[in-house]
Amino acid sequence: MEKINIGIIGLGERGYSLLKSVILEIDYVDVLGVCDIYEDRTERGFDIVAEKRGNKPVRTNDYKVLLGMPEIDAIVITSAWESHLQIAMEAMNAGKYVGVEVGGAYSIDDCWKLVHTYEKTGTPCMMMENCCYGRNELMVLNMVRQGIFGDIVHCAGGYHHDLRHEISFGNENRHYRLRNYLSRNCENYPTHELGPIAKVLDINRGNRMLSLNSVASRAAGLSDFIKRKKPEDTRLLNAEFKQGDIVTTIIKCARGETIVLTLDTTLPRAYSRGFCVRGTKGMYEEQTHSIFLDGVHHEYDYNWSKQWGNADKYREEYEHPIWKKYLTEGVKGGHEGMDWLVFNAFFESVANKTQTPIDVYDSAAWMSISTLSEQSIACGGATVYIPDFTNGKWLQPQTKAEGKYSL
Amino acid sequence: MEKINIGIIGLGERGYSLLKSVILEIDYVDVLGVCDIYEDRTERGFDIVAEKRGNKPVRTNDYKVLLGMPEIDAIVITSAWESHLQIAMEAMNAGKYVGVEVGGAYSIDDCWKLVHTYEKTGTPCMMMENCCYGRNELMVLNMVRQGIFGDIVHCAGGYHHDLRHEISFGNENRHYRLRNYLSRNCENYPTHELGPIAKVLDINRGNRMLSLNSVASRAAGLSDFIKRKKPEDTRLLNAEFKQGDIVTTIIKCARGETIVLTLDTTLPRAYSRGFCVRGTKGMYEEQTHSIFLDGVHHEYDYNWSKQWGNADKYREEYEHPIWKKYLTEGVKGGHEGMDWLVFNAFFESVANKTQTPIDVYDSAAWMSISTLSEQSIACGGATVYIPDFTNGKWLQPQTKAEGKYSL
Repeated sequence: MEKINIGIIGLGERGYSLLKSVILEIDYVDVLGVCDIYEDRTERGFDIVAEKRGNKPVRTNDYKVLLGMPEIDAIVITSAWESHLQIAMEAMNAGKYVGVEVGGAYSIDDCWKLVHTYEKTGTPCMMMENCCYGRNELMVLNMVRQGIFGDIVHCAGGYHHDLRHEISFGNENRHYRLRNYLSRNCENYPTHELGPIAKVLDINRGNRMLSLNSVASRAAGLSDFIKRKKPEDTRLLNAEFKQGDIVTTIIKCARGETIVLTLDTTLPRAYSRGFCVRGTKGMYEEQTHSIFLDGVHHEYDYNWSKQWGNADKYREEYEHPIWKKYLTEGVKGGHEGMDWLVFNAFFESVANKTQTPIDVYDSAAWMSISTLSEQSIACGGATVYIPDFTNGKWLQPQTKAEGKYSL
Repeated sequence: MEKINIGIIGLGERGYSLLKSVILEIDYVDVLGVCDIYEDRTERGFDIVAEKRGNKPVRTNDYKVLLGMPEIDAIVITSAWESHLQIAMEAMNAGKYVGVEVGGAYSIDDCWKLVHTYEKTGTPCMMMENCCYGRNELMVLNMVRQGIFGDIVHCAGGYHHDLRHEISFGNENRHYRLRNYLSRNCENYPTHELGPIAKVLDINRGNRMLSLNSVASRAAGLSDFIKRKKPEDTRLLNAEFKQGDIVTTIIKCARGETIVLTLDTTLPRAYSRGFCVRGTKGMYEEQTHSIFLDGVHHEYDYNWSKQWGNADKYREEYEHPIWKKYLTEGVKGGHEGMDWLVFNAFFESVANKTQTPIDVYDSAAWMSISTLSEQSIACGGATVYIPDFTNGKWLQPQTKAEGKYSL
């Protein structure tokens, strides 16, 4: 692989750990610039590059400095959610490939501007949705494409992750999640598991998301948690969180499929992405990690618990080629290996100067769900139209991005 | 218990099996009348009563005959969905307690008429929602009422039951489900698991359901099934089913809780009621039959599979008193013992001339979800207001029905 140079913007928990455990472990990628608005974080980023690679990257609090460096090929954006799209657009205008961490959009205008910037510059922008490269997600995608589940009519997924501690007390209250949970009420983190579902349902490639309805429960989890865990934190103790504990969003697609997304981050529970795919011939359900196939399993088998976990039995036959190869070579990096794959997918496209496997239309469509759900919730669950960011291109077969990590 | 006399209207699969395995096994209940519009079914009902009890019940195709019998105290309605409310109202007007099998309403007008009939006659009407007496549902209700899960903010449930064979070929195409699936598109069977959830959330007793949004996937499951299983059945082969395979309904409650209901009856899968209760201190999830408690379990425990099934560990401490007693006496009847309990609950109220544990306001509110979801789906997922069938009585503490089976 040809050597490439990158800069990274945003060195909080996520940015730093990606830099350290993923990016600096990929030998054909050099890190020439590190940036964060907080001095301590920039220093930490500089130090880890110097320690692991020996080079001294440019360190700055102003991301425009990195965008102005002609030797940089690509920018990785791991900053606060609100800053993602502005930085992404400036980077595209500067001719840098953009790999932007997951998050949701704050307005439809921003999504359109992102698309327009791509169409003007031709510079790819990829949302770094690592769950698209999850082992189970890819096995299920492989099975879907082989028709094992029949005609797919419904998918579900969510971000079921108890973040009460991180939101309330993480990062000395500098965490961007805190201000979002205090002031907004929406599906603020839609792309796990919408990304993998979009690939299953051919979104923007023969199908598209048409409309959604979003309803939020009241917000009780964070206040209850703070009262019990840190009654001395008077600022947060009196805070009124606007973000509902559980946000349920139903998306209707052009071909008639429904997608149910759940945001579930402020109540006690175990982690799950709640991935579920339903077809006329079978289903996969992450919750029990099980597969039901028509004719193989029986609907009158009420004791399904004996089949819990049976999805592992399908690995040999249906493991996705990306993961087959990966398992042979050795799984690396964070989040059960997904981070490694999604970053290699991005960097491969940068090195080969090809389209990214998650493109700007995917990124815009997936991110738009946040602001559209905010609109729906604000209007009492009203049906909201989802724009067609491809302007009709979804109707024609799209060329898939080339490369080893094509989805 | 004082002896009571009943008549049963509707002797299809459900009515007959209830009569045979539940009603005729309860010694203080005599069956004095059996009715169905089909001759063969009425005969079958007559025969089983004669065989098991020795008495010869009145047999008729006209339910008004049973309503005119002064010696009958209560009517059990197990007929087709569409006929439930008309028969129920006539029975109440005739002074008979009404136990009506589960199903959904076809109009809001019908729900109001049911309530008005009760308010005029004072005759109780109980929806026979057996799942309210499910062992897990009652244990969870018990835990909720003891505050184990903290403040409840969200519940989910559904009717996940592969009925493709029953709908397509069951009962020589006389099954009421067939005509409903051919011509309607709605949450046609909401009360599993809305009934148990309503008890958890104090619906009509301090809380109420305010609004809903319903979205249906396209209908693909039945057509695909029929093509594969009975390609010679030309009538159904060319049928266009209107009922979407998966219907998702989000209900918002007055206290701010959300309820997500799923109808899921025409795609391959194992049975589940998908019961889930989420609070600030814990959760129960039927899918993995597991309980997560804040401080006991850990949110960073990503390997939750080792806790699957752990709800059984809570039996000793939290088994509901109704089930504790029941297990000692011996579990009887169909559907894992739930049918026996719900029928005893109803007959106990009849014998004692008391209010039923599920009353007419519960029945109307729960049934209304079908027609309201039909409205929402027809209007593209529009937010629909759920009437307050109590006319404000829910704001004040309600006396709970007395008796051993009080919920």
